[in-house]
Amino acid sequence: MKKNLFSQRMEGIEKTLIREIHDKADPSCVDLGLGQPSFSTPSAILNHLKKNINDWNLGYSPNAGFPELREVIAENSGLDVSSEQVCVTVGAEEALFSILMVTLDPGDEVLIPDPGFPAYESLVKIAGGTPRKYPLRRENNFSLTHEDIVKAVTPETKVVLINSPNNPTAAVYSQQELKKLAGFMEDQDVWVISDEVYRELYYEEKPASVAPYLSRCVVINSLSKTFSMTGWRLGWCIGPSDLIQLMVKFNQLAVICAPVVSQKAGIFALKGLADKEKEENLKELHRRRETALRCMDEWTDLDYITPRGTFYLFVDVRDRMEKYGGSLDMCLKLLSEEKLVTIPGVAFGRGGEGYLRLSFAAPPPSIEEGIRRLSRFFK
Amino acid sequence: MKKNLFSQRMEGIEKTLIREIHDKADPSCVDLGLGQPSFSTPSAILNHLKKNINDWNLGYSPNAGFPELREVIAENSGLDVSSEQVCVTVGAEEALFSILMVTLDPGDEVLIPDPGFPAYESLVKIAGGTPRKYPLRRENNFSLTHEDIVKAVTPETKVVLINSPNNPTAAVYSQQELKKLAGFMEDQDVWVISDEVYRELYYEEKPASVAPYLSRCVVINSLSKTFSMTGWRLGWCIGPSDLIQLMVKFNQLAVICAPVVSQKAGIFALKGLADKEKEENLKELHRRRETALRCMDEWTDLDYITPRGTFYLFVDVRDRMEKYGGSLDMCLKLLSEEKLVTIPGVAFGRGGEGYLRLSFAAPPPSIEEGIRRLSRFFK
Repeated sequence: MKKNLFSQRMEGIEKTLIREIHDKADPSCVDLGLGQPSFSTPSAILNHLKKNINDWNLGYSPNAGFPELREVIAENSGLDVSSEQVCVTVGAEEALFSILMVTLDPGDEVLIPDPGFPAYESLVKIAGGTPRKYPLRRENNFSLTHEDIVKAVTPETKVVLINSPNNPTAAVYSQQELKKLAGFMEDQDVWVISDEVYRELYYEEKPASVAPYLSRCVVINSLSKTFSMTGWRLGWCIGPSDLIQLMVKFNQLAVICAPVVSQKAGIFALKGLADKEKEENLKELHRRRETALRCMDEWTDLDYITPRGTFYLFVDVRDRMEKYGGSLDMCLKLLSEEKLVTIPGVAFGRGGEGYLRLSFAAPPPSIEEGIRRLSRFFK
Repeated sequence: MKKNLFSQRMEGIEKTLIREIHDKADPSCVDLGLGQPSFSTPSAILNHLKKNINDWNLGYSPNAGFPELREVIAENSGLDVSSEQVCVTVGAEEALFSILMVTLDPGDEVLIPDPGFPAYESLVKIAGGTPRKYPLRRENNFSLTHEDIVKAVTPETKVVLINSPNNPTAAVYSQQELKKLAGFMEDQDVWVISDEVYRELYYEEKPASVAPYLSRCVVINSLSKTFSMTGWRLGWCIGPSDLIQLMVKFNQLAVICAPVVSQKAGIFALKGLADKEKEENLKELHRRRETALRCMDEWTDLDYITPRGTFYLFVDVRDRMEKYGGSLDMCLKLLSEEKLVTIPGVAFGRGGEGYLRLSFAAPPPSIEEGIRRLSRFFK
């Protein structure tokens, strides 16, 4: 009998719907599907690099990242942690992957949000665990209620994944609920992963983190969204020393270290030396959000979740579904009929069905034209 | 009962001896333990970056890497392959890790060389497979004899890993043996991974590859050793389309994409635009090799494997072992008594016991002083 030449762990792992829809789009489309800001990397960072790269040692860094970078990450975290509790990674994605790889055994369950970032489910599977979903509810504007996690925990639960500010719903979880969650979790032998990559992108109160209230918590963050540096692949996680030490061993084997030029850029950025442009970009995101909300309100009668963080508008199309075979079908028709790229809510799980994710990280003319097309589509 | 909070797959995974010895060394030591050349990244690459980085889109690249980079990798490979058969990775290490992750299931065996690069064994374990060693033999100057692999193949063998030019032995495998290996492997349902990261570092005939003779072969390479760009983390693999497609899916999840600035540098380098410095560095490596061999011959009566590739000198100390508890003990004494960093052969498996690996990628004064200390140590 011929052996299967590929690993079972990859069975059923497909390109995300986000990727599939972008693959179908052509350059003439208005793209409100993007998961990254349209801003350039701050020029202060580029100038720093141009000025200094000849003097840098561009060989391997320590597996955990440069000590100076770990230091400044710890200082910036707002947490009472040392640099020994930081592991630098190839973006937030590799941070998440590493944590799952060093914690999960077959049979272990990971609680993930529904709707939620689609990579969560696939990464849990690849790392050998079993994904289990907990609901985020429309009646709470998709914000977390700790009871929904408490109810979902079983003796098999090894990891709970939370994400605030949330992709795709743009919800920001309340400090009160996070504290209650921490209170329950503190007595469980469970890791809580707090994906905080959108933490600096908020429009009302500053997002709270569960980390200060919980000892077995790992915080994930990156340069990508805050500094418009997605392609630089620099992320990190902060957690208990025993977990971090194991992650460093894993990283040594999987990637050796995060890219050194990006680490140098990270030191500069996290010291606040590119904050002027960062702040300008954040202000511009505020304006784009206003533009998006104004266009939605003026030109459509669609309901949406008021974005409290991230750069997403989670649009409620539940009462427009009758002509469509679901949000994916609706998206594909928006793409073919209106040349508008949006992401179907179902890309984020069944809990996202009946919604479309629009990004207001796109340039304002695209936001306006995109929502104009959306409005025309539903006329 | 309290759950084990960490994954079993990380049990027994420790820092490599290479890393441990470097951790014990202080800056006053002469370091012949290095796995990277002392050269800087070619200035042509740095200038290209400084000149153009403001014009580049530094957002995510496609998961498989920029099409232009995949194209130039395919063209440079010397193989009859298309760019669709290339996946760009975060260095050669992540290429190897990805291949193992998308091919291995529990129970699958991977044949790895003994002595061999220590990460092979750990990566196979982390990816859920079982490492099995095949011998490289002193009587063949550690070059491959295909029979040793043929004999080691079992129905459980899923992957065979070969590495020429070889770390740590500096052997280069003969085309004849590689052809014979391919002839046998072609009838097996087995992947052959050919780790060719030292392929351009050779001192006699150009190294052959098994890839042209074998359909189920994956070649791994990177910018690291050839262009002195270890910290840039840019590697790739070339293989059958079905495997590459699966790796691209894996990469999307594990790292999203290789760092974009490094990919841009890679396009420039692989187009030959930094070849002047590359050639100068390769010539300098030839000179350093001559220096190392001359010092060994003049100052010591130690035997060694004449390096045909890489930048390592595999020194035979089997007849000096009586005073020591093994090559590790010898290394630690060299470190404490002579302030000389070398790597014990046992770091590469039991087949390396009785040897020391010295690197001649170090600057010539270090090579000379290092071998002087080695000679004094054995007086």
